[in-house]
Amino acid sequence: MTVLAATSGISHLVARRVAGRSLEAPFYTSREFFDLDIDAIWAQHWIFVAAEGELPEPGDYITAAIGPYSIIVVRDDDGNLAALHNVCRHRGARILPQERGSVGNIVCGYHKWTYRTDGSLLHAPSQDSGFDPTCFGLKAVHVRGVAGLVFVCLAEEPPADFTEVAARIEPYLLPHRLHEAKVAARVDLVEDCNWKLTMENNRECYHCDGHPELVRSFFPTYGYTDDNLPTPLRPAYDRYRRVEAEVRETYEALGLPYETIEELDTRPTGFRIEREPLDLAGESFTPDGTAACQRLLADFPTARLGHLSLHLQPNAWFHFLSDHAITFSVFPIAADKTLLRTTWLVHPDAEDGVDYDLNSLTKVWTATNEQDADLVARAQQGVASPAYVPGPYAPTEYQVEAFCNWYITRLWEHLHQ
Amino acid sequence: MTVLAATSGISHLVARRVAGRSLEAPFYTSREFFDLDIDAIWAQHWIFVAAEGELPEPGDYITAAIGPYSIIVVRDDDGNLAALHNVCRHRGARILPQERGSVGNIVCGYHKWTYRTDGSLLHAPSQDSGFDPTCFGLKAVHVRGVAGLVFVCLAEEPPADFTEVAARIEPYLLPHRLHEAKVAARVDLVEDCNWKLTMENNRECYHCDGHPELVRSFFPTYGYTDDNLPTPLRPAYDRYRRVEAEVRETYEALGLPYETIEELDTRPTGFRIEREPLDLAGESFTPDGTAACQRLLADFPTARLGHLSLHLQPNAWFHFLSDHAITFSVFPIAADKTLLRTTWLVHPDAEDGVDYDLNSLTKVWTATNEQDADLVARAQQGVASPAYVPGPYAPTEYQVEAFCNWYITRLWEHLHQ
Amino acid sequence: MTVLAATSGISHLVARRVAGRSLEAPFYTSREFFDLDIDAIWAQHWIFVAAEGELPEPGDYITAAIGPYSIIVVRDDDGNLAALHNVCRHRGARILPQERGSVGNIVCGYHKWTYRTDGSLLHAPSQDSGFDPTCFGLKAVHVRGVAGLVFVCLAEEPPADFTEVAARIEPYLLPHRLHEAKVAARVDLVEDCNWKLTMENNRECYHCDGHPELVRSFFPTYGYTDDNLPTPLRPAYDRYRRVEAEVRETYEALGLPYETIEELDTRPTGFRIEREPLDLAGESFTPDGTAACQRLLADFPTARLGHLSLHLQPNAWFHFLSDHAITFSVFPIAADKTLLRTTWLVHPDAEDGVDYDLNSLTKVWTATNEQDADLVARAQQGVASPAYVPGPYAPTEYQVEAFCNWYITRLWEHLHQ
Repeated sequence: MTVLAATSGISHLVARRVAGRSLEAPFYTSREFFDLDIDAIWAQHWIFVAAEGELPEPGDYITAAIGPYSIIVVRDDDGNLAALHNVCRHRGARILPQERGSVGNIVCGYHKWTYRTDGSLLHAPSQDSGFDPTCFGLKAVHVRGVAGLVFVCLAEEPPADFTEVAARIEPYLLPHRLHEAKVAARVDLVEDCNWKLTMENNRECYHCDGHPELVRSFFPTYGYTDDNLPTPLRPAYDRYRRVEAEVRETYEALGLPYETIEELDTRPTGFRIEREPLDLAGESFTPDGTAACQRLLADFPTARLGHLSLHLQPNAWFHFLSDHAITFSVFPIAADKTLLRTTWLVHPDAEDGVDYDLNSLTKVWTATNEQDADLVARAQQGVASPAYVPGPYAPTEYQVEAFCNWYITRLWEHLHQ
Repeated sequence: MTVLAATSGISHLVARRVAGRSLEAPFYTSREFFDLDIDAIWAQHWIFVAAEGELPEPGDYITAAIGPYSIIVVRDDDGNLAALHNVCRHRGARILPQERGSVGNIVCGYHKWTYRTDGSLLHAPSQDSGFDPTCFGLKAVHVRGVAGLVFVCLAEEPPADFTEVAARIEPYLLPHRLHEAKVAARVDLVEDCNWKLTMENNRECYHCDGHPELVRSFFPTYGYTDDNLPTPLRPAYDRYRRVEAEVRETYEALGLPYETIEELDTRPTGFRIEREPLDLAGESFTPDGTAACQRLLADFPTARLGHLSLHLQPNAWFHFLSDHAITFSVFPIAADKTLLRTTWLVHPDAEDGVDYDLNSLTKVWTATNEQDADLVARAQQGVASPAYVPGPYAPTEYQVEAFCNWYITRLWEHLHQ
Repeated sequence: MTVLAATSGISHLVARRVAGRSLEAPFYTSREFFDLDIDAIWAQHWIFVAAEGELPEPGDYITAAIGPYSIIVVRDDDGNLAALHNVCRHRGARILPQERGSVGNIVCGYHKWTYRTDGSLLHAPSQDSGFDPTCFGLKAVHVRGVAGLVFVCLAEEPPADFTEVAARIEPYLLPHRLHEAKVAARVDLVEDCNWKLTMENNRECYHCDGHPELVRSFFPTYGYTDDNLPTPLRPAYDRYRRVEAEVRETYEALGLPYETIEELDTRPTGFRIEREPLDLAGESFTPDGTAACQRLLADFPTARLGHLSLHLQPNAWFHFLSDHAITFSVFPIAADKTLLRTTWLVHPDAEDGVDYDLNSLTKVWTATNEQDADLVARAQQGVASPAYVPGPYAPTEYQVEAFCNWYITRLWEHLHQ
């Protein structure tokens, strides 16, 4: 396909998108849209890559693959984070092939070009006198933290609204002390679907019947109000109202914000944050709802804080509880392949076998992720059929539609900038 | 490639095809021709997908992948068959991921949209009052049986001549009672070649030296007549003439048709049907030619019926014997990957270990299929070389040429419709 | 991409190549350049495929995959070599699927078309009288030996300068008697990179820190002269000068050429040949520098001959020692996949366990190849990032640049012929 033809086919599909319906197949299946998504979404927005606790010491680094890009995030000797393209300025070798580790300087394994943790070239062997090392520092990537979560942005000019979003969500997040939380577990799962199906799947609980472990700690009244409540759910609804009032009071007593903010499709940095009570013991995602880690993340007056959910477009969602936090980050691999990375964080002094049992801590979301991976793979398979036509979102899927609104707007602005 | 350029390159190759020679390489190797084949052949013709005995009870279903399409064939409560696209009308998920099974209603595993076996939407949870379920039934696919064999057609208007073809072959097939035959074995084999090489390979016995197990039960006089018979084959030829006369008499006594019909390249539904005697005991494809199953498929007066061969374009061939039947169905996966599904059918009351030994029943064609898979993989590898030029068919390969005539005509008509 | 657009994009990239810098990413990553490389480089130049000792007897053959091409090299009854396309003239099947073997005639396994070792069609079964076998011989490929090394050329007119190159390198090679040397070991390694990265990697020792086993037998003064020698290397440099003089005298006494010839980017058949002394015992690539095979390749007066290095574009390099020789041949598989075939040759009468230990013989270069495979894979990964920009060659990489000069010139001439 010529570049022109491809762009015009793509523009046409973007322009004719029908609100209220799922996207047409090429958005999920074609190489052209995958490439466009990399340019318009992944190379333009802030991408969540790690919690700060994953890089506690100077020299600690992680690498992340954002589509065809590979980036390094490294903590320098002053404790600050730098993000750099993981591409040697000599002949382009990938410098750090591992997913994480610790370095003094950043040394390319090919010809030993040696960079400081700020990316500047410290030494390139065997050069003659005309060689100017200041011209060959590693290309920098924007990096910033938000309440202990690390974001990078490949764009020259990151979205201007992220600072405001950060300021609005930090008061919710800071009490969980993620700066110092430690990694209890990390699981990578490759889903056989487009990244947007992974994100869409997370924006609705319409499929939550498929998550028997997860829904145990959820109130069964999700999506209902006084007006449309089925009679058998009345006792659960009363319980929900009681616990919800209790949790709200706790947060008010702590001077912490409680209200939901939902701005999924009204700004470049689409996001949503919400506090929700949990059913059963009300403390955590466990079969009986009690805390999975005895050592809470911070000096909370009670473990009954429910969960704080954060969704951040394009690539992450989070659950913050009193006893642990879970981060989910999504990375596109191919039109039909996506990495979902899940990380469980606990208090830095919490010990496996003492304060928590690793298996109990991780089992609900490990099961839930695997169930989701099966569902999104079926979605990918289905839309690949020429017989697929976009179908209607249910009212309870309004956030999926908001995500698609946001996505289409992002593409549109990119194509017409 | 632009759509125009692709079509024009394709049209040019279709137009310049040389009769009497194998097809040019792109027909076998290119993505463009694979996609065209899906549109012009697979989405237009009747495709054999199963024997009725594979779906004996109401609710029984099979799924089939026809290139990028996935379809469901299901038996409804009245015992009729329905065929449906396996794509949920909500957000497009593949509904039934398994190859076969049994259902009450057809429930999508993602959001529990529930369809009746006729495809109509019975229930979609959590919809508001404006939702009209009658707009969201599963898309239907044409389906019909022919003497117990199940065919589907993805086209809006299936080829008009199939009914006539069905009427002509049914008198040969019906006595074998395939409606009620049961599956003794099913083997899927992925061949590393284009689907046309699989079909071409089946249209000639020029390579039958490569099938030592199979040719034991064949007369060694294949392709010879009185005029060109080598002297050493005279006794075999006399034997062939004697057995052939005997089998012909049996069929005439039963009032069943005997003559060969060969219409491979003269109609949309290219086909060929032929009765042939078998050598040795003359009953079945076994090392000594005796029946592999003691319980015959029907109340035949003798097991010495030879075999009835049916070839049906684009995707199937069959052998019907007195004691069992074998169906072969071909499904395109990619330009260089093809599924060959082989199914052995026996009398519904025949029991493994009593009436037949499963290993003996299946071993000749299991070996033959594996030998063919090796040969067609070599054919695919060879034509992928830029040094390949189409070569001449031998006289004994006239049916391969007829298949290619049919194929080229189908493409031509599709491109110029 | 239309053919025109593809060609024009390619031409533009070829035209704007910046001297002194590594090539832009598409040269290594795109399908378009891979296809162009096959046409402009691999189908035009002489390709090293085997040592003659790999086909000692009449009927012995090897096959080689040169991108999409498969060729056969076979020794005929008169002891001459023929090279043929491995594509049957009937319907195009790959004739010989194995990598090597021995045949009387060349028989296609599909329909038994039978060719003589000169490619002429001896017999095609079941043809009618109009069939002319002289029209259907296997297509010939140019083949020639150089001092016991076998080269093929797919072009109708091979590069005219190869004869001159052969004449210039033969005096160096002939004393090693490769015509009769036997294969002690052969190892195939698939590298996850473009073939040019494999070749470039071999043209510099800037990365040799990554080869601890190999550099043991090298003098540590590589790249230094009297003018820029670091003081600590003075003793090694004196040792190098002493051994170098000794080896030079040995060759002069034998009447053999000694000087380096370097014509990497000044002719179609780019090449470089050089004798170099080895450190330690000075005999071979072993941990202590002593011969790995007690039986020398020829009746040399001493085992202290250092090594003779030959580099031949596009696809081979060689090391010839007194006790063994190693050939390295490179074959492109895909834009990011390359086969490196390494073969160790010893005296025809040398016996494993008596004259040499196979593990000791092969271990340095087996380790070195694996180290290189890791390095070139990192190079491929790195240049695939959109953040990659071509970087400057170090002075010690001038041969890499010469290779790229040669490559760009070859493409340019191909595109403008």
